[in-house]
Amino acid sequence: MNESVSRPTAADAAELLARVRARRPRVHCLMNSVVQKFTADGITAVGAIPSMTSSLDEIADFVARADVLTVNLGTLDAERRHVIRIAVDMANAGGKPWILDPVHCDYSPGRLAFARDLIALGPTVVRGNRAEMALIGEVRASLAIETGPVDHLSDGSVQVTVENGHVWMAGVTGTGCLSGGVIAAFLAVEGNALKAAAAALATTGVAAELAAPEARGPGSFGIAFLDTLASLSADDLLKHARIRHATA
Amino acid sequence: MNESVSRPTAADAAELLARVRARRPRVHCLMNSVVQKFTADGITAVGAIPSMTSSLDEIADFVARADVLTVNLGTLDAERRHVIRIAVDMANAGGKPWILDPVHCDYSPGRLAFARDLIALGPTVVRGNRAEMALIGEVRASLAIETGPVDHLSDGSVQVTVENGHVWMAGVTGTGCLSGGVIAAFLAVEGNALKAAAAALATTGVAAELAAPEARGPGSFGIAFLDTLASLSADDLLKHARIRHATA
Amino acid sequence: MNESVSRPTAADAAELLARVRARRPRVHCLMNSVVQKFTADGITAVGAIPSMTSSLDEIADFVARADVLTVNLGTLDAERRHVIRIAVDMANAGGKPWILDPVHCDYSPGRLAFARDLIALGPTVVRGNRAEMALIGEVRASLAIETGPVDHLSDGSVQVTVENGHVWMAGVTGTGCLSGGVIAAFLAVEGNALKAAAAALATTGVAAELAAPEARGPGSFGIAFLDTLASLSADDLLKHARIRHATA
Repeated sequence: MNESVSRPTAADAAELLARVRARRPRVHCLMNSVVQKFTADGITAVGAIPSMTSSLDEIADFVARADVLTVNLGTLDAERRHVIRIAVDMANAGGKPWILDPVHCDYSPGRLAFARDLIALGPTVVRGNRAEMALIGEVRASLAIETGPVDHLSDGSVQVTVENGHVWMAGVTGTGCLSGGVIAAFLAVEGNALKAAAAALATTGVAAELAAPEARGPGSFGIAFLDTLASLSADDLLKHARIRHATA
Repeated sequence: MNESVSRPTAADAAELLARVRARRPRVHCLMNSVVQKFTADGITAVGAIPSMTSSLDEIADFVARADVLTVNLGTLDAERRHVIRIAVDMANAGGKPWILDPVHCDYSPGRLAFARDLIALGPTVVRGNRAEMALIGEVRASLAIETGPVDHLSDGSVQVTVENGHVWMAGVTGTGCLSGGVIAAFLAVEGNALKAAAAALATTGVAAELAAPEARGPGSFGIAFLDTLASLSADDLLKHARIRHATA
Repeated sequence: MNESVSRPTAADAAELLARVRARRPRVHCLMNSVVQKFTADGITAVGAIPSMTSSLDEIADFVARADVLTVNLGTLDAERRHVIRIAVDMANAGGKPWILDPVHCDYSPGRLAFARDLIALGPTVVRGNRAEMALIGEVRASLAIETGPVDHLSDGSVQVTVENGHVWMAGVTGTGCLSGGVIAAFLAVEGNALKAAAAALATTGVAAELAAPEARGPGSFGIAFLDTLASLSADDLLKHARIRHATA
C-alpha cells in the first residue's frame, strides 16, 4: 500500500476543501425532517450544492443529477424505505458514492435491520456514534466511521483518528447529520474514501473549534459553526487538523 | 392539601432544573414538522434527550424507550392520528406522563375534535394559548395551562400563574411548542404536574427575559434564548422566577 | 395606463410594509419541509401571520382562514399534488391571491409539468430563479418574477427591476422561499401585484443589505436578516430601495 496515497494528512484536508469549493458537487440527501435546513446550510457552507426531496415520484430525477448520495435513517416508514432503496440502487448503478448514517438504530430493531440490509448493498461510508456502530457490527468492504470526541475511521486495513471537534457539537441537534452531508461532499471529489472522510471530519471539527470562542452557548455555537465552515482557510486546517494513523 | 407540596416556588424551579440536568430524561416528541429542530435544541439545552420520529413503523420502539411523551397537533393526517393514538396508549399503559399541545385547534374543527378525543384519554397536561384553551373547554382530571403574557396553570383546585417571559417569544415560531417539550422534560422527573409545569415555564420565561438584552430582533432572540436555557443557573431562577398562587 | 398606480416606488414599498404590519394578513404556506420554520419566521418578522399545514384533512380549513396562499413545489408527491390543487381551487374560488414558487423544477420533469398545470390555473405571481423561469416559459395573465442578483418583474406590459439584495442570500437555504412568503403577505394588502411584489422584494433585499455588515458568515447572516426584516423602517426603504422601470 502506498502510504502517501492512503494516509490522509492536514494538507490533504486543505487540498480537498479547496477542491469541493471549486467543483461544487451536488449532494442529494435523504435526510430526517428535523435537520434538513441545518444540513443543507452546512453543505452549502463548504461550497457544495444540497438537495433534499424524498418523494417517491421525484427521487430518481434528483439522484440522477447528484454526484453523491447521503442516506440518513431518521423518520423511517415503508415508503421512505422504498425511496431509499431506489436511490441506493441508482447510486450503485451509476458508480456514485453514498454514505449511510444509521441514526438512532439503537432505538428501533426495525431500523437496525434496515440499516444492515443497506450495508449489504455496499455503501462507500457508514458513519454512526458508538452505540450505533456497536450494533451495526462488522462493516465489510467499505469505510466505517465512529464519530465522538475522537472520530475513528477504518477501511479494514488502515485506521485513522480525527481528534478535532468541540463538546458543544453534542448540544446542537444535527451536527452529526450535517457532518455526514459534508463527508458526502468530499466523497464526490476524492475517490479515496478514507482520505475524503478524514478531510471532511477535520473540516467540521476544526470549524467547531474555531466557532466555540465566538459562541455563548449551543444556539450561538450552531450559528458560529456555519460561519466558520464557510470561512475556513487552508491555513486553519494546516494549523489545527489532528489526523493520526495506526495500522490495524 | 399540603401546601408545601402542591404550591410551586422559585426554589422548586431551581431544584427541578438541576434534577432534569442530572437525570437527563428522554422526551419523545410527536412534533409538527415546522419546529422539530428548534424544539429538540430547547429540550437538549435544559439537559434532556429529545427524539422526534413519527413513523407508524417505529413509534412503539421510541415511546418504549422514552420517559415522557409530547403530543403536538400540527400537520395532522389520518396516519399521524393513528400514530398519536398508539403513542398515547403506550404512555398510559406504561404510566408515563404525556402532554397535549392542541396547536391551532382554533383553525380546524377536525383538529379540535381530535384534541377533545385525546383529552378523554387523560393527558397529564394540556397546554394551549387563550384561543385554543377557550375552545377546549373544561379539562378534567389533568393540569390545564393557558400560556400567554402570563401563564395560567390550574389543576382544578389550585391556580398558579407564572409571570415570566418576553414579548419577543411571539416573534419566534415554535417557542410555545418548545416550552411544551420543556414541560415534558420536567414532568419526567417530578410527579406533581403543577410543580413540574410551573418550574418548566419559569425556566423558559426567565431564559427569555435574560436573552432579550442580548438580542437585536427575533432572529438573534431565538438564538440567545437557546444559549440562556443552557446556561440558566439556580440563582437566575431564585432571583427572577415569578410564580404566584391563588386558590380556585 | 396610469403610471402613478402601476409603477412601484420606494415610497410604495414603505407604505405597503406599514400596511402589512397594521393589517397582519394570514399567509398559508404549502412549503417544502426544509425551510418551514425559516419562512414562518420571515413572514412573522414583516408582521404577517404564517400557517404551514399541508395535510389533506385540514387544508380546506386553513386556506379558508387565510388571506393569501403560497405554493412551493419542494418535496412533491401524489398526495401533496392533490392538496395543492384543493388549496389553489379554494383560493381562486374565494378571490384570494396566490403565488407559485416552482423551486427546482429544473431538476425534475414531473415537477416542471405540474408547475405548468398550476400556471394554467392563474397564479397571481410566479417566482423562480433564472433556470426555473427559463423552463417555465411564457407566463400569461399573471406577474412573472425572476429573482437573482437583480430581480426582474414583468406583468406583460410593464417591466420593473429591484436591485437590492446581498450575495450571502445564496448561502442561506430558504431565502428565496422566504421571499415568496413575504411577497404573499404584501399581495394580501395590495391588489396591484406588480406594486406588491416590488415592495416585498425591496423589503427583503434592503433587509439583506443592512444585515450583511452585522454578520460574519452565512449562519449569522440568516439570523441578522430576520432581525433587520423585523426592524426595517420606512426611512430604510426610502433611502436604500432601488426599484427601476422599463416599458416592455
